Amino acid sequence: MESFHKFIFRLFLTYLHISFTIESSESLCSKEDENCFDQQMHPDLFRETSYDSINPLEYTNKYWLDMSREFIKQQMNRQPNTNKAKNVIFFLGDGMGLTTIAAARNLLGGTEQKFVFEEFPYSGLSKTYSVDRIVSDSACTATAYLCGVKAMKGTIGVNGQVHMSDCETGIDRNNFVDSIAKWFIDAGKNAGLVTTTRVTHASPAGVYAHIADRDWENDSEVKKACGSRSASKVQDIAYQLMHGEVGRNLSLIMGGGKENFIDSSLYYNGKRSDGLDLVELFRQEHPDNVYVETRDDLMQANLLKANRVLGLYQDSHMFYHLETNETKNQPTLEEMTIKAIEYLQQRNEDGYFIFIEGGLIDWAHHFNKPRLALDETVEFSKAIRAAREMTSEEDTLIVVTADHSHAFTYGGYPSRKSDVFAPAPAKGKDGKPYMPLSYANGPSFPQFFDNENGQRKDPSLSIVGDINDEFPSTWYMQWETHGGDDVPVYASGPWSHLFTGVYEQNALPHFMAYAACVGNGLTMCQM
Amino acid sequence: MESFHKFIFRLFLTYLHISFTIESSESLCSKEDENCFDQQMHPDLFRETSYDSINPLEYTNKYWLDMSREFIKQQMNRQPNTNKAKNVIFFLGDGMGLTTIAAARNLLGGTEQKFVFEEFPYSGLSKTYSVDRIVSDSACTATAYLCGVKAMKGTIGVNGQVHMSDCETGIDRNNFVDSIAKWFIDAGKNAGLVTTTRVTHASPAGVYAHIADRDWENDSEVKKACGSRSASKVQDIAYQLMHGEVGRNLSLIMGGGKENFIDSSLYYNGKRSDGLDLVELFRQEHPDNVYVETRDDLMQANLLKANRVLGLYQDSHMFYHLETNETKNQPTLEEMTIKAIEYLQQRNEDGYFIFIEGGLIDWAHHFNKPRLALDETVEFSKAIRAAREMTSEEDTLIVVTADHSHAFTYGGYPSRKSDVFAPAPAKGKDGKPYMPLSYANGPSFPQFFDNENGQRKDPSLSIVGDINDEFPSTWYMQWETHGGDDVPVYASGPWSHLFTGVYEQNALPHFMAYAACVGNGLTMCQM
Repeated sequence: MESFHKFIFRLFLTYLHISFTIESSESLCSKEDENCFDQQMHPDLFRETSYDSINPLEYTNKYWLDMSREFIKQQMNRQPNTNKAKNVIFFLGDGMGLTTIAAARNLLGGTEQKFVFEEFPYSGLSKTYSVDRIVSDSACTATAYLCGVKAMKGTIGVNGQVHMSDCETGIDRNNFVDSIAKWFIDAGKNAGLVTTTRVTHASPAGVYAHIADRDWENDSEVKKACGSRSASKVQDIAYQLMHGEVGRNLSLIMGGGKENFIDSSLYYNGKRSDGLDLVELFRQEHPDNVYVETRDDLMQANLLKANRVLGLYQDSHMFYHLETNETKNQPTLEEMTIKAIEYLQQRNEDGYFIFIEGGLIDWAHHFNKPRLALDETVEFSKAIRAAREMTSEEDTLIVVTADHSHAFTYGGYPSRKSDVFAPAPAKGKDGKPYMPLSYANGPSFPQFFDNENGQRKDPSLSIVGDINDEFPSTWYMQWETHGGDDVPVYASGPWSHLFTGVYEQNALPHFMAYAACVGNGLTMCQM
Repeated sequence: MESFHKFIFRLFLTYLHISFTIESSESLCSKEDENCFDQQMHPDLFRETSYDSINPLEYTNKYWLDMSREFIKQQMNRQPNTNKAKNVIFFLGDGMGLTTIAAARNLLGGTEQKFVFEEFPYSGLSKTYSVDRIVSDSACTATAYLCGVKAMKGTIGVNGQVHMSDCETGIDRNNFVDSIAKWFIDAGKNAGLVTTTRVTHASPAGVYAHIADRDWENDSEVKKACGSRSASKVQDIAYQLMHGEVGRNLSLIMGGGKENFIDSSLYYNGKRSDGLDLVELFRQEHPDNVYVETRDDLMQANLLKANRVLGLYQDSHMFYHLETNETKNQPTLEEMTIKAIEYLQQRNEDGYFIFIEGGLIDWAHHFNKPRLALDETVEFSKAIRAAREMTSEEDTLIVVTADHSHAFTYGGYPSRKSDVFAPAPAKGKDGKPYMPLSYANGPSFPQFFDNENGQRKDPSLSIVGDINDEFPSTWYMQWETHGGDDVPVYASGPWSHLFTGVYEQNALPHFMAYAACVGNGLTMCQM
C-alpha cells in the first residue's frame, strides 16, 4: 500500500515537473521583437519584490553625495610619495582575479565593503599572458612578477629560451633570470618569503629558483623526468631553496612542504631519494638558525636573535583556514606575516623585501570550491592589514596583486541582503534554481548533472552549506582552469603612483626596484 | 545491407566513445596525493608541444627589460594634469567587463596588444552594485555614473526612494536626480549623446530621463504599466528626450530607436499611441534642426550650421557592426563619434559633455554570442581612438568604463598563436573539446547538450565560424546575466589622476564635474 502511495506521489511530482518545465521554457517573445527581449532580458529583476538595501541611508541622495565628496577629498589630498622605499612587501593572491575579490567582499558583511588593499591610493591592471600561452600558470607568472621577464608556462626563474621540462636548457646559466629578492640581497638588504602552499610551490619558487619544471620540487621528481644522469646536474627546488645562491641567503622562509626536504628513509612522508635531510642541514648551518613546525613553536620562538628562520607547518600545502583548528596547530597567514615582519624589521636597518602569498585561493578554485577560495581571500586581506599597520607608508611600499585569474563567474541579480552562496532569485528555463557563483569548467560537473534523465540537477540539493561545497561548472574537467583576464594591482607607500594604468605583469618588479633603488634597471636614486 | 553497415559503424563509434570516456575519466591521483594533483592541475600545460609566441623577441630578456624601462619612463614623465576640463567625453561600454576587454585584445592581433584606452595614463576600479542588488542592470548604473547617486534596479534618474515600475513615486520631483549633462547645460555648455542602442535605452536615458521603469520608452508602455489615468502624469522616455528639461537642451542625439518617437498610425513600426510624431516636432522646432536616418544622410549633412542634430538610424537598436553592409546604410560608432565631436567643437566655445555608448557589447553577451560582443568592443575602441585624436589632453577629459560586467569567462590555457574562438588544447573528461570562452548561463545551453543520451555535445560542431555562433553556458536561461565584478575605468586628460584606486560607480560624475567646474559639488575652481 505504501509503495502505491509512493507511486502516485511520484506521478504527481512528474506531472508538476513537466507542466512547470513547459511553462518556464516558453519563449514569450517573437524573434523580431527587441522590446520584448529587453523586458525579459534581466529575469531576476522582475521576479522578486525585495528592495532591501543593507543600509537605509542608501535610499537618500545625501549618502551617495557625501561619500563621493569624501572620496574626492581623499584623492585630492593624496600626494605622490617619492621617498625611497626602504622595504617592499609584495602580496600575491594566487588566482585572485577581480571576480574573486568582488564576490569575497560579501564575506566582509556586504558588497559595499572594501578590503584593506582596496583602500590603497593607487590601482592598476596587469596583463598576465606568458611567452607561449594566452592564459598562464603560476610558474611563468612568478618569473614575470618577481624576475621581470616573461617566460614559458611551467618554468621558473628562467627566460623564454627554456621549454617546460627541458633538462638541458634549464641548467644553462645564460637563461637564468634573477628575482627582486636577489636584487635586495645584493644591495645588502634582507629577503624572505611566507606562503600557505608548499614553500617549494610555483609562486614562492619564483623568489629563489631557476628551474625548467615547477613540479621538480624534490630530487625524486627530477630523476623521474630527466633520468639519473641529467638529474645530477639539475638541482631540485627544495635543494635550491636551502643551497641556491638566493635561497641560502633568505632570512625567513615559512609555509608548507616539509615532504620535499627530507629523504623518504628518514621521514615517513619524505619524498627525497638522495639521502638528504635539508631541515637538519638548516639546523646545523648556524647555532641561531630557528626551525619551527607548529603554531605553538612559532609563537614561543624568540626570533629576534635568530640568524635565519625556517617554518614548515605541513608536509604538503598548509590546510585551508576553514579546515584548521587547535589540533592542527597551524598559524594563520596573518600570524606568519606579523612574525615575519617583526623579525625582518629588527634584522637589518637597511630594510627588506618579503613575498607573502595567499596561495590556497587558487587551490580551492581548481576544486570548484568558492566557500574556501573566498575565505582564503579574506584571510589574505587580514595579513595585508597587519602588514600595513606594522609599517609606515613613508618607507614601506606594499603591492598587492594576483598571478592570474580563474574561470569563475559571479552572475545573476542577487538582492543586496542575500547570501552570495545561495541560489539567484530567478530560476533557469528548466525550472531549477541557479547559483550566482559558478565556474566555466571543473570537477563539480557530474554532481550537478543527472545522466539518467539527461538533465541538470537542482544545485541547491548538493550545495548545503559545507565548506567543501562544490559549485556548478559548464565543462567537466578534472581541475578547473585559470582565466585570461587582467588582474588588479593595488599599491600603497613610496612610488605607489607608478602602479596605475595597464601594463605587462613583468613590469611589477621593475617598479618595486625603482622605488627601492635595487637591481640593474632604472631606479629613483639615479634620477 | 547499407543499414547493416550503418549499424556496425554506429556500434564501432559507440565502442570508441565508451572506451575513450573511460580512459579520459580515470583519475590518476589518489585523494591524498597533493603532488599528483599539482602535476595534473593544469592539463593543457602538458598536452601540447607548441611553444610558439607571437614575436620571437619574446624569448629574450632584452625585450621584456626594454619594455619595462620604457613603461617606467612613461609613468615618470606623466605629470598630474590640473587644467580645467573644457570638455568631457564619457565612453560607456555596456557590459564591457575586464574579461571582455582581455578576450577582445585577441581581435587586435594578439593578447599582447592594447586598446587605445589601455594606453591612458590612469586606471581605476568601479564598484557597480545598486541599492537593491549585488549585480545591477544598465538603468540604475546609468543613474550612478551619470547622476552620481545609486538607485534601485530598473530605474533611471531617480534616487533609491523610487521602486522599479512605481507609477507614483517615480513622478515626484523630490526623487529626481540630475545628470552631469544637466550640470554642463546649466553652466552654459553643450551636451549630447551617441549610442548604438535605441537612444531611449537604459544607458543613454540616464543622460536626460527621470523614470521608474527602463521599459517605459514610449507612451504605450507607460499606459500598459500604469493604466491610462496615471499614465497621463508619467512622461515616457522618448517624450522626455524631446521635451524634458535636459532632453530638449541636448544639442546632438544619435543612435537607434525611431519606433519610440512616432505613433503607430503614422509610421508602420511606430510604437506610440498618443498620436505624436516626435521626429516631426523636432524638425518643426527650429529651421536649422537637422534630422538624419542613414549613413548617407549623416555624411552629406552640413552639421556646422545645425541648431540641434537628431539621428535615428534604425527603428530599434542599430545593427551589430558585423551585420552591417552598404545596404544597411548605417554609420559606425566611430563615424557618429567623429561627426558628433566636430559638431560640438564648433557649437560652443565654452565646451561640451558627450556620452558615447558601445551599447551592443552587452546585447550580444545576453545572447551568448562572443564573436559579436568582442567585435563591438573593437568598434567601441575605434570611436575612442578617434575622440582622443580629435581632442587635446590639455583641455578634454576622456573617461572610458563599463556599467557592469557579464557572467563571461576566458579560461583554459590556449597557446599564444591560437584563435581565441577555437577549442582549448586539452579535452574535457568526457573526451570532448571545450572552449576557452563560455558563459555561466544563457540561451545557448540546449545547443551544447544532448538530451537523449544525457551528455554534452562537442561544441566545435556548432561553433562553426559564423558571427552568430553561440558559446556554451552552464545554466539554461533565456538570456545570459550580468556579472558582479568591478569594472575598470580608464582616464586621460585633466584630472584623470582622480580616477585611480577603487571607488563606488556613483563617484564618476563627481570626478568629471570636479575637473570641469560644473554642478553643485566640489570642483577644482573652488580650490
